[in-house]
Amino acid sequence: MSIEKLNTWVDVPEGSDFTIYNLPFGIYSVAKGERRAGIAIGEQIIDLSYLQENGMLDGLDLSDGIFQREVLNDFISCGKQTWTNLRMRLHELLEESNETLKDHADKAFVDQADAKMHMPVQVGDYTDFYSSEEHATNVGIMFRGKDNALMPNWKHIPVGYHGRASSIIVSGEPFHRPQGQILPKDAEKPVFGPTKLLDIELEMAFITGAASKLGQTIPTEQAEDFIFGMVLFNDWSARDIQKWEYVPLGPFLGKSFASSISPWIVTLDALEYFKVDGPKQNPEVLPYLKFEGKKSYDINLEVFLKPQNGEEEKISTSNHKFLYWNIAQQLAHQTVNGCNINAGDMYGSGTISGKEPDSYGSLLELTWAGNNPIKLKDGSERKFLLDHDTIVIRGHCEKDEIRIGFGEVKTEILPAKI
Amino acid sequence: MSIEKLNTWVDVPEGSDFTIYNLPFGIYSVAKGERRAGIAIGEQIIDLSYLQENGMLDGLDLSDGIFQREVLNDFISCGKQTWTNLRMRLHELLEESNETLKDHADKAFVDQADAKMHMPVQVGDYTDFYSSEEHATNVGIMFRGKDNALMPNWKHIPVGYHGRASSIIVSGEPFHRPQGQILPKDAEKPVFGPTKLLDIELEMAFITGAASKLGQTIPTEQAEDFIFGMVLFNDWSARDIQKWEYVPLGPFLGKSFASSISPWIVTLDALEYFKVDGPKQNPEVLPYLKFEGKKSYDINLEVFLKPQNGEEEKISTSNHKFLYWNIAQQLAHQTVNGCNINAGDMYGSGTISGKEPDSYGSLLELTWAGNNPIKLKDGSERKFLLDHDTIVIRGHCEKDEIRIGFGEVKTEILPAKI
Repeated sequence: MSIEKLNTWVDVPEGSDFTIYNLPFGIYSVAKGERRAGIAIGEQIIDLSYLQENGMLDGLDLSDGIFQREVLNDFISCGKQTWTNLRMRLHELLEESNETLKDHADKAFVDQADAKMHMPVQVGDYTDFYSSEEHATNVGIMFRGKDNALMPNWKHIPVGYHGRASSIIVSGEPFHRPQGQILPKDAEKPVFGPTKLLDIELEMAFITGAASKLGQTIPTEQAEDFIFGMVLFNDWSARDIQKWEYVPLGPFLGKSFASSISPWIVTLDALEYFKVDGPKQNPEVLPYLKFEGKKSYDINLEVFLKPQNGEEEKISTSNHKFLYWNIAQQLAHQTVNGCNINAGDMYGSGTISGKEPDSYGSLLELTWAGNNPIKLKDGSERKFLLDHDTIVIRGHCEKDEIRIGFGEVKTEILPAKI
Repeated sequence: MSIEKLNTWVDVPEGSDFTIYNLPFGIYSVAKGERRAGIAIGEQIIDLSYLQENGMLDGLDLSDGIFQREVLNDFISCGKQTWTNLRMRLHELLEESNETLKDHADKAFVDQADAKMHMPVQVGDYTDFYSSEEHATNVGIMFRGKDNALMPNWKHIPVGYHGRASSIIVSGEPFHRPQGQILPKDAEKPVFGPTKLLDIELEMAFITGAASKLGQTIPTEQAEDFIFGMVLFNDWSARDIQKWEYVPLGPFLGKSFASSISPWIVTLDALEYFKVDGPKQNPEVLPYLKFEGKKSYDINLEVFLKPQNGEEEKISTSNHKFLYWNIAQQLAHQTVNGCNINAGDMYGSGTISGKEPDSYGSLLELTWAGNNPIKLKDGSERKFLLDHDTIVIRGHCEKDEIRIGFGEVKTEILPAKI
């Protein structure tokens, strides 16, 4: 696929995630003002409600005040044609020779440095898949031994489970170390206390933009019409709580205390240019999971750990394209039983690990269950996370000098509330 | 606990679920009119918006139009004091000697027979617990053998998992038999097709009415302040899809195609009089799960099966009081890791089975995995459910000639969409 070269009058610094090719959507506020919808470009935010009020979005069939809501759900419910039309209009307005928006720039733009970012959508349902073969294999080896590492269903089903939507938080919001039941080694009874094995999960999530009806299935070839965009996703995990609770009904409190997302939703339109082939799937999948064309995305992912008063250090380098199951297959599977979806639903990829040990997406894997601690520059070690550690995940695509990115999701761990 | 005897000028037939002691909340519409909030009494519905517009709810601090929304979420978000105040006001207005509402009865009342019932709340998150010892034991024996029937964590943790909120439907709405991946006996690869093992799960669900903040825990002694009321809940299950998918992350598509609820939310205020002691818990639970007083509810539950063109036949008789874990413990567990809740969240009990075989809450147990089919009066047998079977669940409390009930949840199974 080729891409039309675009030049803009907006100042976009070298290496910015938010180029003219990106135009991600978010919800922001300035000072103590109300929340509104914006688009990131360079180091600024375009106030979409200002554009609408000043006639620059005329003809796009957007209802009044749609960008002055607390969340983007109403806008993304308008459907793919509207998202694409708005993107084309913005490309016009931002094009080098266009003066229309440029003349309003002092009022229509806000510095990102002055804005507070909020949850971009109200999440209806949240599903977490488990789509990295390397992650599933690594965890399987540690929890069940090498012979039962990958379950017999794994290469037939994009395995997933329902997660907790209420505790999804946006970058910048800290959370307290969770407490819960833990079974000490060789003990017969559980004890109660703060998790000792607090972990990250490097994931991405897609957000659906159109609703389906109960009983309706979404085939792989239609899936992209139902998906608005993607965000970075850190699915925090308390490994000790999870281990004691998860048989037979799956993870519950070991996951539901917090999941963090990046604030800017990068649309599938923007990601289209960065599509690649995914891993070859063998054995052959059932017909409803077959697909045509490129359905994986070449998104570079990095995880950084910053100890209290210390420096950020990179602890993992991975890529979204490593995922065995792609997002079209995930959505086709989610709905094949007639399960309906809504605009604003979130679908996590599962931890994205690569083949190399430095590309693993969790501390569980990076330290191999704590057996190989990570050594940090300040001399400390990490098996799992400590209070006041901050985790930052960043992600971007780059091809032929065209770059788009997700910004970051950054979260500090606060001590348990005791 | 004693109860104040109440007499009303409204005609309430003998044996009605909707006595003056009940006053459950629902969302209804008449003809093709808009949805609004109502209270069931006898065979009628009180139009709460009419009462508000005509000053009969003055002083209760309710915002304008709060009973003219699509769902009850805004009203139940007002909190327990408001629910209780409204209940007391209604008791006044309905009291035998009070003429205020009686004078408006022709406008303020709607016949239930003329009304269509809708989903009473927008469900944020839905958790399904697994709190019946008898059910967990029965399923454990069938899936894992007698020696591993009850997992080691079961008597320490009110085991639960996240369910799918989008596919919760109200009584009267049919659904199509789901399709999915099934592993045939002795096969190595799954096949795709309609479930052959479609089952019910006899449950009840409580609905939260107040939100908590991320990081906040709700102790057992406060749990009832966060719970608005309860409904009957049929958690449809496709056993063959479930069996192939559920290891290691729990049930997913085997459950997410539909869950049916009764339309009237019976408040905890109404249920208070029917509290009883629950089963003795042994071993001792961790401190955060301890509780004082009666926390179980004596709610008689019945399941009926109606074949196409046939008669309703009772297939199970159970009781909410059989549950090992009570709702205060469930909510304390849900939030002990800091997971936040919202008004409108739904929390299923898990299948409610008693000790006797005729009190089992699923066909899986009633027919012991299809080995002992149920014989129906029309001569047919059921191992699992057939297309066009209708399942009805009813529930009520009765004590000292005082009765309140839940009405019913009634659902027809349509053939798979092929």
